[in-house]
Amino acid sequence: MSAHIYKKLEIVGSSATSIEEAVNNAVAKAAETIRNIRWVELVETRCHVENQKIAYWQVTCKIGFTLDEN
Amino acid sequence: MSAHIYKKLEIVGSSATSIEEAVNNAVAKAAETIRNIRWVELVETRCHVENQKIAYWQVTCKIGFTLDEN
Amino acid sequence: MSAHIYKKLEIVGSSATSIEEAVNNAVAKAAETIRNIRWVELVETRCHVENQKIAYWQVTCKIGFTLDEN
Amino acid sequence: MSAHIYKKLEIVGSSATSIEEAVNNAVAKAAETIRNIRWVELVETRCHVENQKIAYWQVTCKIGFTLDEN
Amino acid sequence: MSAHIYKKLEIVGSSATSIEEAVNNAVAKAAETIRNIRWVELVETRCHVENQKIAYWQVTCKIGFTLDEN
Amino acid sequence: MSAHIYKKLEIVGSSATSIEEAVNNAVAKAAETIRNIRWVELVETRCHVENQKIAYWQVTCKIGFTLDEN
Amino acid sequence: MSAHIYKKLEIVGSSATSIEEAVNNAVAKAAETIRNIRWVELVETRCHVENQKIAYWQVTCKIGFTLDEN
Amino acid sequence: MSAHIYKKLEIVGSSATSIEEAVNNAVAKAAETIRNIRWVELVETRCHVENQKIAYWQVTCKIGFTLDEN
Amino acid sequence: MSAHIYKKLEIVGSSATSIEEAVNNAVAKAAETIRNIRWVELVETRCHVENQKIAYWQVTCKIGFTLDEN
Amino acid sequence: MSAHIYKKLEIVGSSATSIEEAVNNAVAKAAETIRNIRWVELVETRCHVENQKIAYWQVTCKIGFTLDEN
Amino acid sequence: MSAHIYKKLEIVGSSATSIEEAVNNAVAKAAETIRNIRWVELVETRCHVENQKIAYWQVTCKIGFTLDEN
Amino acid sequence: MSAHIYKKLEIVGSSATSIEEAVNNAVAKAAETIRNIRWVELVETRCHVENQKIAYWQVTCKIGFTLDEN
Repeated sequence: MSAHIYKKLEIVGSSATSIEEAVNNAVAKAAETIRNIRWVELVETRCHVENQKIAYWQVTCKIGFTLDEN
Repeated sequence: MSAHIYKKLEIVGSSATSIEEAVNNAVAKAAETIRNIRWVELVETRCHVENQKIAYWQVTCKIGFTLDEN
Repeated sequence: MSAHIYKKLEIVGSSATSIEEAVNNAVAKAAETIRNIRWVELVETRCHVENQKIAYWQVTCKIGFTLDEN
Repeated sequence: MSAHIYKKLEIVGSSATSIEEAVNNAVAKAAETIRNIRWVELVETRCHVENQKIAYWQVTCKIGFTLDEN
Repeated sequence: MSAHIYKKLEIVGSSATSIEEAVNNAVAKAAETIRNIRWVELVETRCHVENQKIAYWQVTCKIGFTLDEN
Repeated sequence: MSAHIYKKLEIVGSSATSIEEAVNNAVAKAAETIRNIRWVELVETRCHVENQKIAYWQVTCKIGFTLDEN
Repeated sequence: MSAHIYKKLEIVGSSATSIEEAVNNAVAKAAETIRNIRWVELVETRCHVENQKIAYWQVTCKIGFTLDEN
Repeated sequence: MSAHIYKKLEIVGSSATSIEEAVNNAVAKAAETIRNIRWVELVETRCHVENQKIAYWQVTCKIGFTLDEN
Repeated sequence: MSAHIYKKLEIVGSSATSIEEAVNNAVAKAAETIRNIRWVELVETRCHVENQKIAYWQVTCKIGFTLDEN
Repeated sequence: MSAHIYKKLEIVGSSATSIEEAVNNAVAKAAETIRNIRWVELVETRCHVENQKIAYWQVTCKIGFTLDEN
Repeated sequence: MSAHIYKKLEIVGSSATSIEEAVNNAVAKAAETIRNIRWVELVETRCHVENQKIAYWQVTCKIGFTLDEN
Repeated sequence: MSAHIYKKLEIVGSSATSIEEAVNNAVAKAAETIRNIRWVELVETRCHVENQKIAYWQVTCKIGFTLDEN
């Protein structure tokens, strides 16, 4: 991080497989509309349960991107 | 919540009457521009005071909506 | 703050000089795209270090603005 | 509270109407199985949204009851 | 809030009816001894339970008032 | 989550392999005694270390289930 | 702590004498109904005051025990 | 706690001997000027060190008392 | 800090210039009515914005002073 | 954990693959200079992003080891 | 505390007897290797349980010492 | 930050002038013994007061440096 101005969005990614994939999905979705993503902060991890088993990992992420280069 | 990707906005609703109405006003305002609202998290409640009486209930809400269906 | 509906954005301002200037830069950048900014909350202050010295003060701010007048 | 031993349960009450009713529902449900309820702590308030409107207020409560009199 | 100096008191209001009334009672009581109350922050909500039912809503509030005009 | 009443238990799952498996083990154990599990909140992750290597991932989870359908 | 599954209960112990005795009382009470208690986390300490003096120390504890050996 | 209005003061008690005595000293000092003290919340415990040994236990307490009976 | 009893007040200082000056103003105001101020804890920093620029830095401080020497 | 004295270091491990590997790398690095590592607490997880994809998982860990056996 | 530079270490002290003794043991151990210890902050208190009874009080402390005089 | 392993120290810097100078002093002191300092996190700001005026700004910083290049 250097002398830029950054903005942080709060995105919740989901995955049936893992926490990492849920975060990857959140970043991939954000990347569709914003450029210059610099970092991610994992805020909270929850799971959606169906039939007594974990169906989805749902990870709340704060995604930081350079505002002035967008 | 299932396998979607969600985004969370931070909105402060106001009401002269109650906490619930302040939250309803925040959701109603958000609903003007975003679809598929799924949940709300109440983050903080403050009051604006005038003439030694509570004029407005001001509730900071995080509003979660499905990003990929918007 | 009165009976309005407000929105809060999370912006990280930078400055080589001071915390105050980093916050001012964040507000100035936000003011390019949003009107009716009402308040700022300082959330976190970090520094980027180069050559064993503080290069930039980086302050995460929540910037509140009146949504219904925008 | 005096020299007793207490236990705390974490119950989420729901209501289509208000936060207070959601808490009352949580206490009423707990009262079906435990006696000597002494206090409630409101931990978190969320809302379930359907059709862009708040369907249910969902309040996470910690309910304290006297253990040694149960 | 502007260039004033403010002081914050921590008051717990009670009500048999609702959270809002408990806060109103706290502000009314504070208003007996302090002027220029500007805002309230709701810190914590607890309930006093009697006979397995909520007897009182007890809301801890921080009440901010202008110090230099008192 | 809809108009139900839910209860939350605090379970610590362990696994020699991963965080996800530790959470799965916690849910599987809870499922032996409770039905209608709806969600999990990951509260804290610790590791038990033996011979200078991570022996077990230990994840504290809050497991929410529908109380009124149990 | 090793590869077990653990459960945590939230118990408030009281004592007219000290914080330690209040915690001991909480563990002793829990030990009446659960085996394999492994650890305690002190969450919060409050005092009940009578006649302007501390009558009871009341310590909220999280008590962890091995679930799979119970 | 019942339908009263309460006020909370933040007092730091000290003792060369123990945490409990530091809290007792805080309550005793507060009792010189306020009546109807109902409860104490221990907020933080620090120690003042002299000559590499703990000289004083310093416990920050929030002391709640009935406002309307004072 | 030594074996004294201390009290903490919560004061919000303001300044059009800087965080430091806002804190200095809070201490100066408190010093008008209390003696033996020992320390300050900065709790929260907010800004009041007018015409899209920061008008005032508003810093919430906890001011500790020796109670028994007052 | 038993009657030992422990010290906690704060290490940030990195991995291009997963959270678990980042923690393993942190422990492996710590093990080069300290013996008798007993546990790890995961404090925070961030990601470094390059070219709109997660390049590294960066996990802040507190690593506890027995001080008196070192 | 005055114009010095201080460092804080995180030490966990243990005692079979009390919280205070656990903190004293942590300070005594730290004093073997560092001089000019100034203060201690109690961060967390846990207990190790054996045979359904508290075997050890384990207190996590942050120990502050003057760096520039060491 | 990239694929390195980092360590974080907790240093309290002091200054009679400003928060920024206190942080600079902390980094300068740390730089005497560690290389490759990468970032600073401001954790807490306190002031030491003498004669009813702020004598020193004391800022607790977490200083991150690359461990594997040291």
